[in-house]
Amino acid sequence: MNSNIKEVLKALEEGKIKAEEALERLKIEPFEDIGYAKLDLHRRVRQGSAEVIYGEGKTAEQIIGIVDAMVRKQQEPILVTRLDEKKAEALAEHHKIDYSKEARLAVVGKKPEPDGIGRIVIATGGTSDIPVAEEAAITAETLGNEVVRLYDVGVAGIHRLLANKEYIMNASVIITVAGMEGALASVVGGLADCPIIAVPTSVGYGASFGGLSALLSMLNSCASGVACVNIDNGFGAGYMASRINHMEAKK
Amino acid sequence: MNSNIKEVLKALEEGKIKAEEALERLKIEPFEDIGYAKLDLHRRVRQGSAEVIYGEGKTAEQIIGIVDAMVRKQQEPILVTRLDEKKAEALAEHHKIDYSKEARLAVVGKKPEPDGIGRIVIATGGTSDIPVAEEAAITAETLGNEVVRLYDVGVAGIHRLLANKEYIMNASVIITVAGMEGALASVVGGLADCPIIAVPTSVGYGASFGGLSALLSMLNSCASGVACVNIDNGFGAGYMASRINHMEAKK
Amino acid sequence: MNSNIKEVLKALEEGKIKAEEALERLKIEPFEDIGYAKLDLHRRVRQGSAEVIYGEGKTAEQIIGIVDAMVRKQQEPILVTRLDEKKAEALAEHHKIDYSKEARLAVVGKKPEPDGIGRIVIATGGTSDIPVAEEAAITAETLGNEVVRLYDVGVAGIHRLLANKEYIMNASVIITVAGMEGALASVVGGLADCPIIAVPTSVGYGASFGGLSALLSMLNSCASGVACVNIDNGFGAGYMASRINHMEAKK
Amino acid sequence: MNSNIKEVLKALEEGKIKAEEALERLKIEPFEDIGYAKLDLHRRVRQGSAEVIYGEGKTAEQIIGIVDAMVRKQQEPILVTRLDEKKAEALAEHHKIDYSKEARLAVVGKKPEPDGIGRIVIATGGTSDIPVAEEAAITAETLGNEVVRLYDVGVAGIHRLLANKEYIMNASVIITVAGMEGALASVVGGLADCPIIAVPTSVGYGASFGGLSALLSMLNSCASGVACVNIDNGFGAGYMASRINHMEAKK
Amino acid sequence: MNSNIKEVLKALEEGKIKAEEALERLKIEPFEDIGYAKLDLHRRVRQGSAEVIYGEGKTAEQIIGIVDAMVRKQQEPILVTRLDEKKAEALAEHHKIDYSKEARLAVVGKKPEPDGIGRIVIATGGTSDIPVAEEAAITAETLGNEVVRLYDVGVAGIHRLLANKEYIMNASVIITVAGMEGALASVVGGLADCPIIAVPTSVGYGASFGGLSALLSMLNSCASGVACVNIDNGFGAGYMASRINHMEAKK
Amino acid sequence: MNSNIKEVLKALEEGKIKAEEALERLKIEPFEDIGYAKLDLHRRVRQGSAEVIYGEGKTAEQIIGIVDAMVRKQQEPILVTRLDEKKAEALAEHHKIDYSKEARLAVVGKKPEPDGIGRIVIATGGTSDIPVAEEAAITAETLGNEVVRLYDVGVAGIHRLLANKEYIMNASVIITVAGMEGALASVVGGLADCPIIAVPTSVGYGASFGGLSALLSMLNSCASGVACVNIDNGFGAGYMASRINHMEAKK
Amino acid sequence: MNSNIKEVLKALEEGKIKAEEALERLKIEPFEDIGYAKLDLHRRVRQGSAEVIYGEGKTAEQIIGIVDAMVRKQQEPILVTRLDEKKAEALAEHHKIDYSKEARLAVVGKKPEPDGIGRIVIATGGTSDIPVAEEAAITAETLGNEVVRLYDVGVAGIHRLLANKEYIMNASVIITVAGMEGALASVVGGLADCPIIAVPTSVGYGASFGGLSALLSMLNSCASGVACVNIDNGFGAGYMASRINHMEAKK
Amino acid sequence: MNSNIKEVLKALEEGKIKAEEALERLKIEPFEDIGYAKLDLHRRVRQGSAEVIYGEGKTAEQIIGIVDAMVRKQQEPILVTRLDEKKAEALAEHHKIDYSKEARLAVVGKKPEPDGIGRIVIATGGTSDIPVAEEAAITAETLGNEVVRLYDVGVAGIHRLLANKEYIMNASVIITVAGMEGALASVVGGLADCPIIAVPTSVGYGASFGGLSALLSMLNSCASGVACVNIDNGFGAGYMASRINHMEAKK
Repeated sequence: MNSNIKEVLKALEEGKIKAEEALERLKIEPFEDIGYAKLDLHRRVRQGSAEVIYGEGKTAEQIIGIVDAMVRKQQEPILVTRLDEKKAEALAEHHKIDYSKEARLAVVGKKPEPDGIGRIVIATGGTSDIPVAEEAAITAETLGNEVVRLYDVGVAGIHRLLANKEYIMNASVIITVAGMEGALASVVGGLADCPIIAVPTSVGYGASFGGLSALLSMLNSCASGVACVNIDNGFGAGYMASRINHMEAKK
Repeated sequence: MNSNIKEVLKALEEGKIKAEEALERLKIEPFEDIGYAKLDLHRRVRQGSAEVIYGEGKTAEQIIGIVDAMVRKQQEPILVTRLDEKKAEALAEHHKIDYSKEARLAVVGKKPEPDGIGRIVIATGGTSDIPVAEEAAITAETLGNEVVRLYDVGVAGIHRLLANKEYIMNASVIITVAGMEGALASVVGGLADCPIIAVPTSVGYGASFGGLSALLSMLNSCASGVACVNIDNGFGAGYMASRINHMEAKK
Repeated sequence: MNSNIKEVLKALEEGKIKAEEALERLKIEPFEDIGYAKLDLHRRVRQGSAEVIYGEGKTAEQIIGIVDAMVRKQQEPILVTRLDEKKAEALAEHHKIDYSKEARLAVVGKKPEPDGIGRIVIATGGTSDIPVAEEAAITAETLGNEVVRLYDVGVAGIHRLLANKEYIMNASVIITVAGMEGALASVVGGLADCPIIAVPTSVGYGASFGGLSALLSMLNSCASGVACVNIDNGFGAGYMASRINHMEAKK
Repeated sequence: MNSNIKEVLKALEEGKIKAEEALERLKIEPFEDIGYAKLDLHRRVRQGSAEVIYGEGKTAEQIIGIVDAMVRKQQEPILVTRLDEKKAEALAEHHKIDYSKEARLAVVGKKPEPDGIGRIVIATGGTSDIPVAEEAAITAETLGNEVVRLYDVGVAGIHRLLANKEYIMNASVIITVAGMEGALASVVGGLADCPIIAVPTSVGYGASFGGLSALLSMLNSCASGVACVNIDNGFGAGYMASRINHMEAKK
Repeated sequence: MNSNIKEVLKALEEGKIKAEEALERLKIEPFEDIGYAKLDLHRRVRQGSAEVIYGEGKTAEQIIGIVDAMVRKQQEPILVTRLDEKKAEALAEHHKIDYSKEARLAVVGKKPEPDGIGRIVIATGGTSDIPVAEEAAITAETLGNEVVRLYDVGVAGIHRLLANKEYIMNASVIITVAGMEGALASVVGGLADCPIIAVPTSVGYGASFGGLSALLSMLNSCASGVACVNIDNGFGAGYMASRINHMEAKK
Repeated sequence: MNSNIKEVLKALEEGKIKAEEALERLKIEPFEDIGYAKLDLHRRVRQGSAEVIYGEGKTAEQIIGIVDAMVRKQQEPILVTRLDEKKAEALAEHHKIDYSKEARLAVVGKKPEPDGIGRIVIATGGTSDIPVAEEAAITAETLGNEVVRLYDVGVAGIHRLLANKEYIMNASVIITVAGMEGALASVVGGLADCPIIAVPTSVGYGASFGGLSALLSMLNSCASGVACVNIDNGFGAGYMASRINHMEAKK
Repeated sequence: MNSNIKEVLKALEEGKIKAEEALERLKIEPFEDIGYAKLDLHRRVRQGSAEVIYGEGKTAEQIIGIVDAMVRKQQEPILVTRLDEKKAEALAEHHKIDYSKEARLAVVGKKPEPDGIGRIVIATGGTSDIPVAEEAAITAETLGNEVVRLYDVGVAGIHRLLANKEYIMNASVIITVAGMEGALASVVGGLADCPIIAVPTSVGYGASFGGLSALLSMLNSCASGVACVNIDNGFGAGYMASRINHMEAKK
Repeated sequence: MNSNIKEVLKALEEGKIKAEEALERLKIEPFEDIGYAKLDLHRRVRQGSAEVIYGEGKTAEQIIGIVDAMVRKQQEPILVTRLDEKKAEALAEHHKIDYSKEARLAVVGKKPEPDGIGRIVIATGGTSDIPVAEEAAITAETLGNEVVRLYDVGVAGIHRLLANKEYIMNASVIITVAGMEGALASVVGGLADCPIIAVPTSVGYGASFGGLSALLSMLNSCASGVACVNIDNGFGAGYMASRINHMEAKK
């Protein structure tokens, strides 16, 4: 941003603009106000990724309005997360979307070609964790990553995991998705040498307390190189993994 | 107990005793009252194991008093758990004890020969879990079991556990002792085909919340054949394992 | 497994197979991949029991698909737990099942003759705990155990429990199922001399906090020889009890 | 209080006092202000019992000052609870006290003769619960009650409790004091037909979470006629039991 | 019960009965088994009150069956708690009931004349607490108590409570019913000199955490003479209050 | 109130009234009893604001009844909070209301002109927090305040907040409404020099635990000058802000 | 701040400064960096109050260093909170301080004359809450407020509070400080018509859970016009109250 | 590992070794057993980093023993975490160490030259968070990273953070270390476009509940690209950041 400021100040110094205009330009808001939401249209530039709309708690009308504004500014691809089927249908009437009912996630626009450093492996403990894993997977793909899915490789049958050791060893980033006791993160953490994002899920009952059990497990992982996102936050894991997979040197 | 009642009633029917005496005998208390504790001297018979004294919250004098009364009734071997070093020294002045400072556990009298069905394997996730594991191990030995110790085989280095797979496969009962994320129980549970007693420990910090993390993990284990005892309850695990290892048919 | 490895290596040594084939055979996956779930078909051999399908979070189609694959491999009897009525009906159209609406549990195939060491007694504190108890009971029966049901013998009317003392004394394993304050485990634990599996239930309201109260009670049981499974986990208790009741010596 | 107001108004009506004096008398504070504490000297009259000083968080000087003021107003007997040994010694230099180190409780002045309806029975689960039980017992005695102590009758050895059934059946009020799983309240609740005050204690470790386990158990007691006080609140239980034991008809 | 045993033994001593019959009579079960519930028909005698059926988690059929059995044994009045409207209608087709939709409570048979020591005052903090208060009130009335209702006298308008001070001062037992911050118990506790039963309710939102806030408040009440029952447990409070209000001397 | 007492006493002293009448006048209840609720009609005078009806847990009939009584006493404007659409329609048939479906809040009567010291700024972290913010805004407006709404200025896009810094700097009171991690309160707290009321919302999922996360954040705010109300308590925040904005000197 | 920017830009436009210098001046950091802490020296101007140093977790040396820097910039008076006796002594060797051991708080420099709108009343439930109250009181005094202390007026003796009603009615802001059940906030909230800041304290034991009980109570207060700060946060309450008491209109 | 297996099998195929030897070599344990700990000496190879010793719960002797064994195998540099001063001194007598008392961390051997992709920026909210930050910083440095420290830039003074925006914008990985409300992660998350590791600390009091508040905040961060490690786990954050900073493509 400093470079922008410099340019403005330079223009002012050189008499090309007036102090007042300089002030205005320095204050210029990098977002568009559409009433119920402030669109952050510069975000892609600043943060290098697509805009994301958190669908829960927004009406179909609000979502469509936000997507409209983004499309006008060519912000595609756009991810709409936590989008139930009904709202997805409403959205589909206005925009061409790629909707995953399982992941409750819509993509507006085309997914880009993978351009990350390597592959993101997404492993789940059981079949019930798949919706959260899919949210992570589609998010990562939409952000330009190649994704490998390893589903139902929970630790209670450790040989299922070991049989896929090659994928684990060759991953650039791994996302482990597991509910109940969430041990998958630790076991994978012991096998892999890449960064691991752990996603606890609310799969389970009784003393799983809505995912608390898996969350605590993952936070306490005895393996190093593991970090956690919120319960059921597949999107957050996919996003974080993509950032890691797009690491590059800066000045 | 019914047989005792029958005998008393029979004696009454046959006029050998009076109703009053019968009443007294029916009411006879199977424990000795030494003021601050009721000793349950029939317990060995009823439950087939040594008496155990929970040392925490009792003074050295009280512990010695209880041991005295038990020794008089030949209740050895006696386990004194949660016994700090100072009280152990005081006890050692009155009775010959075998004291483990690590496990904070004293045994009065000789450990019996192993007479269980098979071997009890005790595995820990890390070296910090060893004190709890030793409490379990010595308890099991004192109750007549052969014990195999597999320490520091946590899941973050799964190959350390797999290298000992043979012990796991041939165990009759396994006790898994782990703090932090407590994943050991699930992984062992997936490998073994015998009953597994899981002991969460308070090893860890931050979001381990004094063992809560490991406890929830173990309760939510995705492996079948796993049951849990209280946090740091090595004694309870050893006792339970011994009962399982001494299973026999009843009428 | 080592014996298998030996055979493969022997064959290689003897020139019967090539290194490449040996590698393949050593890597051979002991499970079948049907897309949404990896069936662990060797599990029965390794762990000596039927395969179990956790019905919650799986669609009827997925369940039927898994059962189909198992039946093809003669994996019966198969337990399907947490199966609601509607899915049970769908399953029944493809396979002959024995469904308990109360326990939300279906058995595919015939229950075996009891071949355990002794009897498993299942006691509940109240009538509301019966569904969880039935899940345990049918699980145990399907795994080859004789089961005795003692329902509604909660501690608030201790004479109801004492009147059944004979069953308690002659059990090989006892499963205590109770919600609210979960005291049943401790009282039974004081009477019995066999291993006790405690199942807290979510029966109750207010400060029972969905079974937390009973769970903590059971974990803190002052009686020895008690271990816990997850809240409402009747299946886990039945499975664990069966393992204990099928204990046998190993090399 | 209304009668007092009436008297004042009557005196005013009859011209015996002035409005101003009436106002003063109506406003008169029924407590003495000694700077750091407002002594409620009318409390005995209003509530029919001795004043109680909560010793924790007060300096020895403050406690002595409060006792001084009370003694000047003849407020004996005075209970000083949660009083550590050192402060007790300091207090003993100024007033004749009866101090229980175990219960951390001092009584200033003489305990009255019992004048309650019946006997208060105080039962504990173990020997470690005795300090809390003694706090309850001495409190009740100081408030004019006959107390029967039944210590170490926990439910894990139910016969110990049943052997004392007669005391239970003949109690007017029962106080059950137990840590760990706190099941004593429910079992006693099923045997007795009098009001039961349950006191959870912080005795235990791990998942007892400082008494939470026993507290939840007692709140969820399946027995009717049980009410709870705070963890380790022996005083509160003794006070409540005394109130119940001194019930009488009012207009 | 000892007197019964004596009679049996006496009869045996005098040859009136045989040992076998004596045994049978000593073992006689004081409850009737109707399959899904063990009716405790001697309870009224032992505990001096009506039988109570906890309606939640029982089918209408089960409830009707239990009531039938009780009515046959003349156990009226019978309280059926936590009974929803639909089950109440089903029950009403078989028995004449007095049903309170608000309190979700049915009474089978006639309420007795009040025969307690004094009056039970039931105070609520707000209007939303009335259902729980009514459960307490009807329970107490059915058990033979005169009840005074003081509703909506919460502490945020302390003058509303003070205006009813006379009722508070003349109560024999007070039940305070409050959600949210549950301060009512402490304030009433400071005014009254009789035993107070505090009932936290789940009224509130956010940080009331389903009644936890009110529960903790009441357990920590700075007023003496207060004891607590479970959240929303109006029945338990009414039952406990009735026991207190029927206190009498025993031998 | 003392002045009232003085007047009454004066009248009594001067013989204008009798002692009995004086007593009655001193006891006069400042609320009207309409059966299910005690209306506190003097409250406006005492506390300087409109009466508020908490709509949750009250039937439409009860709400209409309370509003009727208030309108008769000219208590408008009246706020009815937590009022669902159906009850609002019922109320609208009896009284002219201004209803916000989003805020679930009805205003009976006209909102007054703003007469506070300055402006109340209400900021939300996201669009999902708007309903709670609106509850605060309409409450504050109804109580005579000018309100500035700054919605969707969460800290993840700090420039959106900074762009509105002028509003922040010139506010008299700020209400920050945020769910999830609730960081808005701290950031605003660091920018502003006026009192800040923080409202955590239940917006979020997983480890937000129904607003607990935001609540703890706000309570732990590292910024000074921040105080908290209950989760989702928009009304409470608006009310508190209004009180602050109407501060004035007292004698 | 905009005005500053304008001035800089103006100077640049007029050629008085260069673009580079303008940039520097726009970037100028309003705090001094002394290595371990960034002193915010403009804060007084921006936020209208003294700088505050949180003493916990800082060494005596660090605190002295920070005070030195502030004194050099004439930032007095300076509050140092959570300062233990030993560090206070060290600080006193370098600066003249006014230290309250009870409140663990030092003031460097002179307290200003009160210049707020009215009086701040600080009320505590018991004597053990006084340290937290004193922290609030001295903070408020140092920030230019007149403070009235009402200590030990807890709700269990409601007449003690009512006797001080006049202070309550005439306060501009009230701070209620209470542990245990924290009911004081609600009762005062019902009496007063000014903003109330509630401070829960960690006074209590057992189910007070370190102040959680009081905190939840205060958050759930049924009285309007109450907002909460963190447990034991006397400073925060005093600071917030001062801000409210110094409210003034802005443009 | 597969390549190793292949080599062994090849050797066997070619008759260079016998089946038995092949078996032995396939089973060879990649760790050294020194009694109390299994050293994982191949870990560096497998996971590309130094070995780490968790010092807590290990005796000085054990730590020295482990370091000895590692040094013999040239495993330097070795990190010893959670090492108190006393043990550090003992260790220093045997090995040359670089010890940070603040971070409780010793490095045995020389730190390598930075060889990561870019810079790791470590930001703390306050000065009390510095010990945890230092643990992260030294860990990262020891693993070959350049570290930039931005301490005391908490969100309550947002300008302090914004003044360092350039560092934030140019970081490759950012570690945010904050206690109390932990908002730093979200604000930094909104500014940066690189992966962010959030470390909650136990700094705070009252409702910070030992770091729970900051932990929940960070898990619920509204900013994307943030993942969490355990409370106070500076090591874990440094390790994870290093892995990310050493990302490289794999086959």
